[in-house]
Amino acid sequence: MIDHKSIIKSKIDNKSIVFAVFGVGYVGIPLAQAISNAGCKVIGFDIDEDRVDKLNSSISPIKQIKDEEIEEMILNGFEATTDFSRTSDCDFLIICVPTPLSLHREPDLTAIRATMQSIQPYLKPGQGLALESTTWPGTTNEVLKPYIVDRGLSIGEDFFLVYSPEREDPGNVDFDTKSVPKIVAGMTAVCSEVGVAAYQKIVNSIVPVSSTQTAEMVKLVENIHRSVNIGLVNELKKICDAMAIDIFDVIDAAATKPFGFTPYYPGPGIGGHCIPIDPFYLTWKAREYGVNTRFIELAGEINAEMPKYVVDKLSMSLNARGKALSKSSVLCVGIAYKRDVDDMRESPSVTVMELLKASGAHVEYSDPNVPKFPKMRTHKFDLVSVELTADNIERFDAIVLLTDHTELDYELMRKHAALIVDTRGKYRSSADPDNLSGANIVRA
Amino acid sequence: MIDHKSIIKSKIDNKSIVFAVFGVGYVGIPLAQAISNAGCKVIGFDIDEDRVDKLNSSISPIKQIKDEEIEEMILNGFEATTDFSRTSDCDFLIICVPTPLSLHREPDLTAIRATMQSIQPYLKPGQGLALESTTWPGTTNEVLKPYIVDRGLSIGEDFFLVYSPEREDPGNVDFDTKSVPKIVAGMTAVCSEVGVAAYQKIVNSIVPVSSTQTAEMVKLVENIHRSVNIGLVNELKKICDAMAIDIFDVIDAAATKPFGFTPYYPGPGIGGHCIPIDPFYLTWKAREYGVNTRFIELAGEINAEMPKYVVDKLSMSLNARGKALSKSSVLCVGIAYKRDVDDMRESPSVTVMELLKASGAHVEYSDPNVPKFPKMRTHKFDLVSVELTADNIERFDAIVLLTDHTELDYELMRKHAALIVDTRGKYRSSADPDNLSGANIVRA
Repeated sequence: MIDHKSIIKSKIDNKSIVFAVFGVGYVGIPLAQAISNAGCKVIGFDIDEDRVDKLNSSISPIKQIKDEEIEEMILNGFEATTDFSRTSDCDFLIICVPTPLSLHREPDLTAIRATMQSIQPYLKPGQGLALESTTWPGTTNEVLKPYIVDRGLSIGEDFFLVYSPEREDPGNVDFDTKSVPKIVAGMTAVCSEVGVAAYQKIVNSIVPVSSTQTAEMVKLVENIHRSVNIGLVNELKKICDAMAIDIFDVIDAAATKPFGFTPYYPGPGIGGHCIPIDPFYLTWKAREYGVNTRFIELAGEINAEMPKYVVDKLSMSLNARGKALSKSSVLCVGIAYKRDVDDMRESPSVTVMELLKASGAHVEYSDPNVPKFPKMRTHKFDLVSVELTADNIERFDAIVLLTDHTELDYELMRKHAALIVDTRGKYRSSADPDNLSGANIVRA
Repeated sequence: MIDHKSIIKSKIDNKSIVFAVFGVGYVGIPLAQAISNAGCKVIGFDIDEDRVDKLNSSISPIKQIKDEEIEEMILNGFEATTDFSRTSDCDFLIICVPTPLSLHREPDLTAIRATMQSIQPYLKPGQGLALESTTWPGTTNEVLKPYIVDRGLSIGEDFFLVYSPEREDPGNVDFDTKSVPKIVAGMTAVCSEVGVAAYQKIVNSIVPVSSTQTAEMVKLVENIHRSVNIGLVNELKKICDAMAIDIFDVIDAAATKPFGFTPYYPGPGIGGHCIPIDPFYLTWKAREYGVNTRFIELAGEINAEMPKYVVDKLSMSLNARGKALSKSSVLCVGIAYKRDVDDMRESPSVTVMELLKASGAHVEYSDPNVPKFPKMRTHKFDLVSVELTADNIERFDAIVLLTDHTELDYELMRKHAALIVDTRGKYRSSADPDNLSGANIVRA
């Protein structure tokens, strides 16, 4: 009997192992880079031909990774392909495809299933497979395992199935794929052993957990924690606003408590591919067990209301100046979903822009990271980024500050804007309590 | 015109200032100690004669402060009194009285009002007064200020009114009154200046905030944050339990994420004088402004349900063993509200004991910090702590572990208990997945 575990472990040891990364996007590219940096061969698979061609021409499709970095990966043997039959050239397969929600807020595992279907004919004894996509507890067992078993492979004996959630945080300068501890769980003890060995080559530190369900839950809980804490401060923002207290001053001061408090700051809503989406994967699965996820739903509701809250604040502020929103021109500043990224996925800024447009306002935007409003699944604006100059700022009746990129010129806006609706606390009340320094600033 | 500000500031500088602390309990005693350690005279006021007598005889009424420490304070000039007329001997008055909830969950400021009434005749020009009790935003302005103004004093000129929330954390060995940064806000800029000067003598670091309302909100937000995060993990515990996942393993693993996640652990509910109470001060005040505190109410609801959840888990576990709860004897281990304290206020353990008693179970308890079940406002058990010996443990059909004091012998319980219902994750599933090591352990 062939000892598949020992074979793959020795391939890992001597770095002759070939990794496959399925889905080369915000998660897959940094991961492929970490593998490449570890001195192992890695092939990136994607169904997007354009993206694959770009990668093979050393063009990075994401802001965090530079073209030269892709070039270096290629020099070290990286290649991208749309040919899934090449799965048979690989030893350790890692799936990093998107797991969005359907329009009815149900988990959409289409990309996972499509990947498994595409690679199933090329699965073979001795391989390992890890899912990194965020998903409901039980996915690895209930969705992935059957593809492998149906192929006639025996999990834990001649095939090693693992769940290891990605923890990417685009724009985070303190941590990258290599330095963030990696949760790893195998379907069996042997699967765990292989998974830990493979990831140990790539990242600094591994956190083995007892089951794939536990590992799936870990990732959801991390993002639920964020969603709920942001929902809480967004609710507190509304309460503070009613009481004429600046929530940002409150959070700054509370953050000086050296134990038992972690600051989260409010904003115009939540965006990105994780926080607005992942929690509802648990909501959906929990129904099967007859249990409820009330914090998740409350956070979802409150966070989803924030763009309307911002537009209402703007409308009332214009109204106080004798202006109708429908007769006003508004510049939305910062439309990527968070600071210093170019990612527009689920950005609440787009919802603000749509609400403004629907209210009859003239809307434009300025974002140094988003030179042209991108094609999106459900949103359409035929706009390019307005340059932030004194003249341009003065053209508008109001600025709505939605994402506080580092490189924006906040002093210029303060000097030249007729009105700033600040959703990010960039202009703390405590710093200028009497609004003396130029623009009228409204916190929203 | 007398420059009262300069006079009190120079008294602070040369340590001739006399402090008064109203309410010598969990907050007031450590504060008086910090003042005494700073080399200033301090008088402790209380309406409880017994407590005052004890203090004057060097007997500490709280576990965290030893008798010898009180003795040392007395050697340095500390004294306690029930005679509020002695307020006129003092320069800087600090109020640390309890702010509980009424039976209808409304703020009960009786102790603050009673203190202000008692001291009002003795307020005089040149004094400062700080409120430290946790309360709704606006209390200093709406409740305290009138007593001072009605006395004919002029705030910011000949009297200095300040709000500075206590941040005591009994049982915390890393931080004490002196080392926790102190939030200070004055009713006027001059009040702030005096408040900052006074507290600077006592603690290491001061965080001035812009208004007393902001400072009042800071303290509430700190405790709301805790209440909501504990509520969230308590809800997640129920969901994990339904899915046969150990929430403690999940939180341990999530806590390895080096950013964006802070671990909170579930339990049998929440206790103590802060977390179950303070958030509803905001709920009450928010109604005045027509805004809602939905996270606070959801957390309150879920946390309040936990004792029943624990009892249900126990009942079903006994049932699975063919036993009725009403025919069982149950030992509740750890009944103080949190680890390594003796404080029974709002302890969820008492609710568990009452639910057990109401279900007909024979209930006893063991807690090294609570040798005799204390007199409580709404609870009555005529019990003393059962010593945790092998024989005693074996007398019971089940142990419910409610508070995980450090000094408890967990191995002894594991070896000798017929059944342990563990609400604190002391017995992680991952450490013994097959429950092989003795007792049957159920997570609740």
